[in-house]
Amino acid sequence: MGQEEDSDALPVTNQEIHASILASIYGMDFEAGKRDEAEGVQQISTVHAAALGQRSASVALSSTSVWRDRAGSWGWMLSAFILLNVLILGCALVSGSVFNGVQVSNTHLQVFLIIIIIPTTAWMLFYKAYTCREEEAVLYKDVHAGPVWLRGGLVLFGVCSLIMDVFKIAYYVGYTHCDSPVKIVFPVVQAVFILVQTYFLWLHAKDCVQVQRNVTRCGLMLTLATNLMLWMTAVTEESLHQTVYPDSSTNYTSRTLLLRAAAADGDSSCQCSHTSCSIFEHAYYYLYPFNIEYSLFASAMTYVMWKNVGRLVDDHPPHEHRFHLRDVLLGPAGGLVVLVAGIATFVVYEVDVLAEEQEKRDMALTMYYVTNTVTIILMTIFIVVGCVIFRLERREHASGKNPTRSLDMGLLVGSSMGQFTVSYFTIVAVLGMGIDSHVNALNLAWSILTVVELCLQNVFIIEGIRREPHHDVRRASIFSNLLALHAQEERRPSHIPMSPRSSIAIPVHKPLPWKRKMLKEISAFLLLSNIILWIMPAFGARPQFDNPIGTEFYEFHMWVAVVNIGLPFGIFYRMHSVASLFEVYLTS
Amino acid sequence: MGQEEDSDALPVTNQEIHASILASIYGMDFEAGKRDEAEGVQQISTVHAAALGQRSASVALSSTSVWRDRAGSWGWMLSAFILLNVLILGCALVSGSVFNGVQVSNTHLQVFLIIIIIPTTAWMLFYKAYTCREEEAVLYKDVHAGPVWLRGGLVLFGVCSLIMDVFKIAYYVGYTHCDSPVKIVFPVVQAVFILVQTYFLWLHAKDCVQVQRNVTRCGLMLTLATNLMLWMTAVTEESLHQTVYPDSSTNYTSRTLLLRAAAADGDSSCQCSHTSCSIFEHAYYYLYPFNIEYSLFASAMTYVMWKNVGRLVDDHPPHEHRFHLRDVLLGPAGGLVVLVAGIATFVVYEVDVLAEEQEKRDMALTMYYVTNTVTIILMTIFIVVGCVIFRLERREHASGKNPTRSLDMGLLVGSSMGQFTVSYFTIVAVLGMGIDSHVNALNLAWSILTVVELCLQNVFIIEGIRREPHHDVRRASIFSNLLALHAQEERRPSHIPMSPRSSIAIPVHKPLPWKRKMLKEISAFLLLSNIILWIMPAFGARPQFDNPIGTEFYEFHMWVAVVNIGLPFGIFYRMHSVASLFEVYLTS
Repeated sequence: MGQEEDSDALPVTNQEIHASILASIYGMDFEAGKRDEAEGVQQISTVHAAALGQRSASVALSSTSVWRDRAGSWGWMLSAFILLNVLILGCALVSGSVFNGVQVSNTHLQVFLIIIIIPTTAWMLFYKAYTCREEEAVLYKDVHAGPVWLRGGLVLFGVCSLIMDVFKIAYYVGYTHCDSPVKIVFPVVQAVFILVQTYFLWLHAKDCVQVQRNVTRCGLMLTLATNLMLWMTAVTEESLHQTVYPDSSTNYTSRTLLLRAAAADGDSSCQCSHTSCSIFEHAYYYLYPFNIEYSLFASAMTYVMWKNVGRLVDDHPPHEHRFHLRDVLLGPAGGLVVLVAGIATFVVYEVDVLAEEQEKRDMALTMYYVTNTVTIILMTIFIVVGCVIFRLERREHASGKNPTRSLDMGLLVGSSMGQFTVSYFTIVAVLGMGIDSHVNALNLAWSILTVVELCLQNVFIIEGIRREPHHDVRRASIFSNLLALHAQEERRPSHIPMSPRSSIAIPVHKPLPWKRKMLKEISAFLLLSNIILWIMPAFGARPQFDNPIGTEFYEFHMWVAVVNIGLPFGIFYRMHSVASLFEVYLTS
Repeated sequence: MGQEEDSDALPVTNQEIHASILASIYGMDFEAGKRDEAEGVQQISTVHAAALGQRSASVALSSTSVWRDRAGSWGWMLSAFILLNVLILGCALVSGSVFNGVQVSNTHLQVFLIIIIIPTTAWMLFYKAYTCREEEAVLYKDVHAGPVWLRGGLVLFGVCSLIMDVFKIAYYVGYTHCDSPVKIVFPVVQAVFILVQTYFLWLHAKDCVQVQRNVTRCGLMLTLATNLMLWMTAVTEESLHQTVYPDSSTNYTSRTLLLRAAAADGDSSCQCSHTSCSIFEHAYYYLYPFNIEYSLFASAMTYVMWKNVGRLVDDHPPHEHRFHLRDVLLGPAGGLVVLVAGIATFVVYEVDVLAEEQEKRDMALTMYYVTNTVTIILMTIFIVVGCVIFRLERREHASGKNPTRSLDMGLLVGSSMGQFTVSYFTIVAVLGMGIDSHVNALNLAWSILTVVELCLQNVFIIEGIRREPHHDVRRASIFSNLLALHAQEERRPSHIPMSPRSSIAIPVHKPLPWKRKMLKEISAFLLLSNIILWIMPAFGARPQFDNPIGTEFYEFHMWVAVVNIGLPFGIFYRMHSVASLFEVYLTS
């Protein structure tokens, strides 16, 4: 019976079959398509214009975001195997250096890194030279790739990484008489790599490369492999550094542990030849998290570039959404309060948690947990309201496939897994150890609420950026183009102006309806809240180590690994959320 | 300049713009599309027929393999979050049970597993009841999903898992007086789950569910999460079991270790109440790897089902490629020799490696490595020849997007990472320890060659299954359908027979050209070689433990984890390769 119903509902004319195929390709409801066709007179006129000239035809063709050589290329296979092989070999070397340390030492690992960094840097220089010489190398730019927050973050963390390398060089210069020269060569090579790569990604993150596609794919995958290897090495080194004295971990907080470890890190037979060694070491270990973030940022951008190789995209700039705070008040104000309270808490926490007295440390932890829990509760309430409004609003989802958007969502959800992991491990640890104090009760509450908040925030952001933007100036989408092309064959609307884009500039200036106003308020609040949730871990708050429950429940090295892998992804997630929420603010 | 060239090359007429958009949607070259249009008179006639009736229109529409509700559903988000949360919480529990063991014991983990298994089983029964009652629930079947090797493997490993559960129940019945009853409840629940799931996947692996899509998505993701949790638990338990005596690992091979561990596994204060305990325990630990494979198989099938929810596919059966060994001789003969030699080696190895004398064990290892190395070398040579022929042949790549094929390739390459990991870890270990004996030299050679062979075999298989099949009876593809619909609007070819499929039956009976013959020979040889490479690890050959280099270089628990995670994926990979090579054999 269902089978028959389905057949009955199917379109019968050729035009309709065609339209329905197009609609289904774009993953859209056919009925909705027909509705659009009936209503969208304005859109038809726009598209009508698009069908006139070659230039417009090029836009219509390229907006489908296709790749020229998907079927025929061997480049993506080779590049995938390069990534796979470098990463797995690197994994084996890192494991060897951790679990063996004698036959495969840290020096061997650094030699391996130098070996992969040099060709990567050379390739980036070659790419730069090549694209300068050949004008047709990059015909299109993906306007969504490499947004300003990602590039800004890259530069910021790149600068920190450079400073880290300088400190490292200064530190190991004191050990030249008794340590391998590789220890100095590696930070030098890494510094050059960071300089070249930051410059490269700043200029070329949006490129959709059209020539030498296979070489470019391989180069980009090599770059990705190098960044992931640097990330893996940095995480391992930081974790090892924190677990030099795992046995004494029960009675010391991470800070005192770190100080002790740092003091005894040099081999006892090898003394530093200058006096400022320990300062340099403290400084460069403090900068490790920034270097880890740098590698994550570079990896994300390189991956997006790789996906864009050979892609043909619409190369005109996206619609400018002007940013203004008109009509919104409550959200930004509330967000600012949370932000200021968070920063105050952070400063007090950072001072008090280093105190000698247990009581003062507990006080600091309590304060930190309370602030975070309250922030998360407020955020959750706002998000739930936002999701309800999305449901009420019934705005259309943006039509057409947008690979960059899908990629963006993938990165968002993927990076949220870091925070998920840390939270779930904390929940299991607290429940396993039993809630013996209010500090741990708060820790549990914070972790559970964080899990809830992460799920809901992901849903809110994905819903937000998938909706068709509330354009005050409407723009035609590729899907309406295609349908309109059909419509136009049949009935030529003569009463509509024909000049390109003459029909699209209908700016509206009236107060926002309450739903849009509410969405803007909510986005603004969430944006500011995410900023404070980003700032606190990024600049060194580590309650996961200051509260000994994790290190007691799991063994120390396990807990250090979980936190050191999970937290940088959590920081990346918060930054990404801020950017996405800004987009939701603008488009709603 | 490039920009202009690009514009010049663009189509100008409406028809051509339209065709080019369609072509670009399908990721195909526009010029090739036009060529097809000019040449494909036969195809046009087929498609012509397709445009006649509603039924055919339904096929044309559905062949585009689209999803009905991609844009609007919240189901996939919710289901993804279910998977994420269950898995990460499970991960935390597993880590807790490994690193703590007191507050979170194995019993807690099993309670968690029971809690997720029961709703999963209930959902599968509900699904069965629902699809039986509602006829329209499953309108389409994906003919590529759940191939017979996957379902057969599922049943085979399912039977082994059931036997394992029976042994486990029998074993723990002996400990009822002093151990938790959960230890008996868990295998009972697991056995019911395996029965229901095997039945469910056997019948429904090909379903493209159309009703209750969101519930189905969530149910499938819950099933996937359950299977992955069972996999994770089994891997952990097996690894823990092998590392009960990590300190004495240097002097014992894994077998003796396992025997000692088994003998002392029961708590000393808790004695088994019946005499056959140790037999049951040996038996169920021997069956663990089959249970691990079962979870991997079920996960792969569930994931494919999840991807197919709401998908509209062409529901007519694929072209029947008849299997025959006409024209091929060398490949199957060579493959059979390798297979027989491999089985003989395997039997001798399994006997000799348990010997007391070091010399005899080394002999067995040498023999094993030599056989494997020779096999891999032969395979590599054949694959290289095959790739050259692919390059010479210039057969078109299959047109259109095929999500199942992409998924298949993803699973193939993904599962090969297990073997990659084991090989690279071995390479690093041997190089780190230094090649002190011919056994380790062979081990190194085998590992390096395996890496090369894996890369090349992946390329060969992907190239093979992406090529347009050498149909003796040609079939129209959706892409030519669309183009032909256009062509047909302009010129109605009256000289071509109109009845559906009257033009497609042109069977050819002549000897194969040498390229096709060679490809068939190569596929047959590789198929049989992959069978032996699958049999040896699947039935218990573990040179990774019998050769002490891995356990010496990495710490024992690290090496056990690497091998226990990597090898099952390697076994899955070989089985998958066999199936894919069979397809390459048929289509070339």
